[in-house]
Amino acid sequence: MKNVDLLVLGHTAFDYIMEVKEFSKINTSAIVEKMETLNGGAAGNVAVVASKMGLDVGLISCIGKDFKGSDYEKEMLEEGIDISDMIISEKANTPTAFVLTNPEDQQMFYFYWGAAEEYKKTEVPKEAINNSRAVHLATGDPEFNIKSGKYAYENKKLVSFDPGQDLHLYSTKDLSEMLKHCNILFGNEHEIDHICDLLEKSVDELLEEGLYMIIQTLGDKGSVIYVKDEDPLTIEVVKTKAVDPTGAGDSYRAAFLSLYLRDNDLRTCGRFASAVSSYIVETQGTQTNIPTSDQALERMNDNWPIEDY
Amino acid sequence: MKNVDLLVLGHTAFDYIMEVKEFSKINTSAIVEKMETLNGGAAGNVAVVASKMGLDVGLISCIGKDFKGSDYEKEMLEEGIDISDMIISEKANTPTAFVLTNPEDQQMFYFYWGAAEEYKKTEVPKEAINNSRAVHLATGDPEFNIKSGKYAYENKKLVSFDPGQDLHLYSTKDLSEMLKHCNILFGNEHEIDHICDLLEKSVDELLEEGLYMIIQTLGDKGSVIYVKDEDPLTIEVVKTKAVDPTGAGDSYRAAFLSLYLRDNDLRTCGRFASAVSSYIVETQGTQTNIPTSDQALERMNDNWPIEDY
Repeated sequence: MKNVDLLVLGHTAFDYIMEVKEFSKINTSAIVEKMETLNGGAAGNVAVVASKMGLDVGLISCIGKDFKGSDYEKEMLEEGIDISDMIISEKANTPTAFVLTNPEDQQMFYFYWGAAEEYKKTEVPKEAINNSRAVHLATGDPEFNIKSGKYAYENKKLVSFDPGQDLHLYSTKDLSEMLKHCNILFGNEHEIDHICDLLEKSVDELLEEGLYMIIQTLGDKGSVIYVKDEDPLTIEVVKTKAVDPTGAGDSYRAAFLSLYLRDNDLRTCGRFASAVSSYIVETQGTQTNIPTSDQALERMNDNWPIEDY
Repeated sequence: MKNVDLLVLGHTAFDYIMEVKEFSKINTSAIVEKMETLNGGAAGNVAVVASKMGLDVGLISCIGKDFKGSDYEKEMLEEGIDISDMIISEKANTPTAFVLTNPEDQQMFYFYWGAAEEYKKTEVPKEAINNSRAVHLATGDPEFNIKSGKYAYENKKLVSFDPGQDLHLYSTKDLSEMLKHCNILFGNEHEIDHICDLLEKSVDELLEEGLYMIIQTLGDKGSVIYVKDEDPLTIEVVKTKAVDPTGAGDSYRAAFLSLYLRDNDLRTCGRFASAVSSYIVETQGTQTNIPTSDQALERMNDNWPIEDY
């Protein structure tokens, strides 16, 4: 892998968003009225948004042969994301999420992890980590994330961690080990609370023990940035017409890191992240409405005029 | 389209065969343990097998942008199937079938027709029909099939028709109109019976009124070929270890036509078709175990040594 600002590790996935008339019952068939195939996976989302925000990005995910030649691959290559170290399964397909929604807005979810089983056989990507300034660990295999995070941390990289919906895959011991070797923890309301519960520690105690920063995103209630011995920094949401919240959190993380790695103050990083994620929720899909860096800056400045600083 | 022996009209589809631990319940997620994406669609199946059996084949199906660059497209191009007149939807994806099976072998089916809505806006492919010797109408849009069949029949092409699982989409009037303009009707046990019921006619009456031949495939009980004023010709199945019957019928039709268009007698056509379909059932998927023409001939000759004729 070439030299990058940010190396992202974790899932790259295809998302199938399906509208059904009704759900299939056993041994009967049902009609899918509408189907969209979208690019997804938390690591893929972070990589694409961070790259659009101007970072040089590398991405390592477990993918299947079906990724080769896909639109998703093409978009990543056009975006200039370094995917030369992707882990390619010979047998399984790329992780895929199927989300079925009926006219009553009830949903069913099927997750196929497929190629993700390859993480277990994969060594720490030392060269890629050595060639990066920062490493972001998204949803993915806990063991792979922990050992990669540890190597990165010991080699003085900035390490950020976002267990996301995979939090339940981490044992208390895993989490404790992970947090010893990272600088920034991202999570939503429930995830940060759950981590504190599991470790029987408060946010302040976690910061005491070595984490530099905890960032809690709160959906339409904005976000809070916690740093040791400082007052929590509250970032308001940028109000917009939300259609689909999926991917908002990933885009927040990517946008935050993109300014943080360029030495902006935390308030600006958070506000910029808030502006970027406000675009993401305006359409269905996690990568369908990514703003340019200029658009996001403009929306941030409209929302927080200079006199508000 | 170039000159072809057989033009196939109807569905080309992707098949997703998924093994789940359990089915998703409303608002909960379920894990897909194994997923295979296979090439399918009745018209696609017939085209690929007929081509492997040595016919020059053209295929017209409604497909989405996702077909471009897919392995399915590559295989068709390598096989030399003329897909230059495929109908490509700008908005929808290629028809896709999702088959979910739980450990108790219960199944759920979801069908996405997507691009198939384009048939309604599509004119009869006159040039392609003019350039072909025979036209096979597989599952697809009834109206498109009927008008294409009529044009082909009136222009002295051999027309075969297989409504398959789409039979319920045809009104009695549609069926009557279709059968007036075709030479060969294919169907399984239930389908031929159902057609006779709908039209209130026996097989003999249908043959009286113009159909040249009715071929009924009976799964592991073989097949029967009906021709006017002749005794029904029974073709035994070629016994094998069956894993998945999907696609057996399509391969039978393709193989039958491939010999029939080369002026073989009906018994040989049927036995060859039976030999080809015995390969198809040996693996999961409709196009995963297509024999070469030589392999099929050899199996046919092993099964029916020359002294049995």
